[in-house]
Amino acid sequence: MDTLIGMSTPSDLERVESRIIELVRNHLSVPATDIAESCRPVLHEVVEQAVTSSEGGKRLRARLAIAAFDAIRPHAGPETRDAMVDLACAIEVFQTAALVHDDIIDESDLRRGKPSAHRALAEATHSTAIGRGLGLMLGDILATMSIAIAEHAASCLHHPHALDSAFLHMQRDVSVGQVLDLAVELNPLDNPTQLADASLNVFRWKTASYTTMAPLQLGLTAAGIAPDRAAELAERIGRPVGVAFQLADDLLDVIGYTKATGKPVGGDIKEGKRSVLLADALTLSDAPARDELIAMYEAPQRDAQDVRRGIEIFTGCGAVDRSRERISALWNEARTAIASSGLDHDAQQTLIRACRMFIPDSCL
Amino acid sequence: MDTLIGMSTPSDLERVESRIIELVRNHLSVPATDIAESCRPVLHEVVEQAVTSSEGGKRLRARLAIAAFDAIRPHAGPETRDAMVDLACAIEVFQTAALVHDDIIDESDLRRGKPSAHRALAEATHSTAIGRGLGLMLGDILATMSIAIAEHAASCLHHPHALDSAFLHMQRDVSVGQVLDLAVELNPLDNPTQLADASLNVFRWKTASYTTMAPLQLGLTAAGIAPDRAAELAERIGRPVGVAFQLADDLLDVIGYTKATGKPVGGDIKEGKRSVLLADALTLSDAPARDELIAMYEAPQRDAQDVRRGIEIFTGCGAVDRSRERISALWNEARTAIASSGLDHDAQQTLIRACRMFIPDSCL
Repeated sequence: MDTLIGMSTPSDLERVESRIIELVRNHLSVPATDIAESCRPVLHEVVEQAVTSSEGGKRLRARLAIAAFDAIRPHAGPETRDAMVDLACAIEVFQTAALVHDDIIDESDLRRGKPSAHRALAEATHSTAIGRGLGLMLGDILATMSIAIAEHAASCLHHPHALDSAFLHMQRDVSVGQVLDLAVELNPLDNPTQLADASLNVFRWKTASYTTMAPLQLGLTAAGIAPDRAAELAERIGRPVGVAFQLADDLLDVIGYTKATGKPVGGDIKEGKRSVLLADALTLSDAPARDELIAMYEAPQRDAQDVRRGIEIFTGCGAVDRSRERISALWNEARTAIASSGLDHDAQQTLIRACRMFIPDSCL
Repeated sequence: MDTLIGMSTPSDLERVESRIIELVRNHLSVPATDIAESCRPVLHEVVEQAVTSSEGGKRLRARLAIAAFDAIRPHAGPETRDAMVDLACAIEVFQTAALVHDDIIDESDLRRGKPSAHRALAEATHSTAIGRGLGLMLGDILATMSIAIAEHAASCLHHPHALDSAFLHMQRDVSVGQVLDLAVELNPLDNPTQLADASLNVFRWKTASYTTMAPLQLGLTAAGIAPDRAAELAERIGRPVGVAFQLADDLLDVIGYTKATGKPVGGDIKEGKRSVLLADALTLSDAPARDELIAMYEAPQRDAQDVRRGIEIFTGCGAVDRSRERISALWNEARTAIASSGLDHDAQQTLIRACRMFIPDSCL
């Protein structure tokens, strides 16, 4: 996939990766003399966890933001582009903050194959409660830090106030999305159309907001596009790409490809997650399979056999194919939005390549 | 006490109170059409909880920030002063965010005599886990919102960039303070001097940072004092006042005055909280009482009789008097810092009156 990425070259990826760690360490450098000696080890654990939690990841969001900037200003000077890289890093730092809190909400023990932040901090302090408290604070620290990084970078780019405001809006939208995501879990299963609508709506807030919409908006605005127009383009292009990305993530959970997600296949079924796939399966399956699914999802937990049976029903009834169709339709919507963006041909090509990163081949 | 507050009149307090609610509602107004119908009730609960959690409180922080501004610019125009009121409100909104997360960390069921946010949301959704998740997100939403409010206000005041930066620093310092607070809980009880040092250090980060230092810094900077000088004055005046405020809060927990704190007397002892009072009691008490205290605090929990006995030891061994001495010394330090501030006489008087709000008479 990396060969498709155009302007956002592998060296950009390395640069983003090392710069994130540098920024996280800079923003957490508190003079040791300001901290009572007996408290330093715990603070040190939190700082190191901030770094560990920030490492890795595909950096898709940062790369999209940089690509959007490059699409408009392919010949920006090195200082301006450095500021854009920092702004892109800020999105990634915010994502880490959101994931740290998400893992506390979901009580997840693992993240990217390593212990989740609150679990690692619980290990380090030999206390589940203190680990959770430290994890919660780590998320807060990273969220605040991401804003500080974004604002410092924005001051060297076009439309700094619009950038600050877009960054804060992104954070709010993701939190609202998490609220909606929890609300969906309270949805009954007897109205699959309503469940599909609700899930797709959550994807716009919880995922598209910071995955594709904000990166596009920030990159385009920073490059000099008028803030209102940048916001509109980001909505028209980024919403369908971001929703398709989340649909693909849920689909990969069922059709395999563990390497791509780092999560065990069927994890969402095991957790009983209300998803678009589930809603489509409830709509498309025959009555016995539907009743089976409802019983399975209303049970307090699901075992490996339930997961296998769930995957079988999702595939057999056509819900998997329906997800692929949804993803293809959204991808076409995004391509149409790019084609009618009024941007020049090269800029359009850059945007198409960058957006294409979010749609795994196996999901189209 | 209210008669002592000088420029920050009761009508300022009412204005801050109503403006906070207005700002919280404005920043959470998402068009209903953007939200799937089945998710609206839960989002509505979160918005209403944001309002409920924001209500009440003494608004000491907002009043100090406004007083600091008024001390320097007693004749500011209405628009400028409105912006200062909004900036002061932003500090209060941030405090609410911090308290919402704090109650999750401490698993507190009550706040200001009402159910804590995550508990109220658990009631509303009939799920402890979803309530906690929604509470966590509510804290995130309020923290982001406080920054947006602060930045909007700052753009109409002196030194907007310095104000933005100070506000973000405040948030970081409070989170670091919460980390240190959790670290103190891991301190052993065999080194009371170290425990007292650590606790006092935590107070600077966890409490003084946003209670007195940031309000002074923001008010003085917004009024036109050079940012570096404002930060230095805020540190020299605000640190001792803020630390004294936290000492007084812990002292009130032991000497009574439930009305002032809204918490049951002896609550900190019941929770086994590592405090300066405890450290002083371990230093000042005789060996049998010290052993009794250590056994009590190392036990998994403490009952009403333990609480009574703890209060008896704290009072009898002189730890309560020692806290009063500490508070008086810090208050004198703050007065000296104000006297040597180089500000004119009226400004100094305004600052003394505003800072005095933080020290209950019964603790001096």
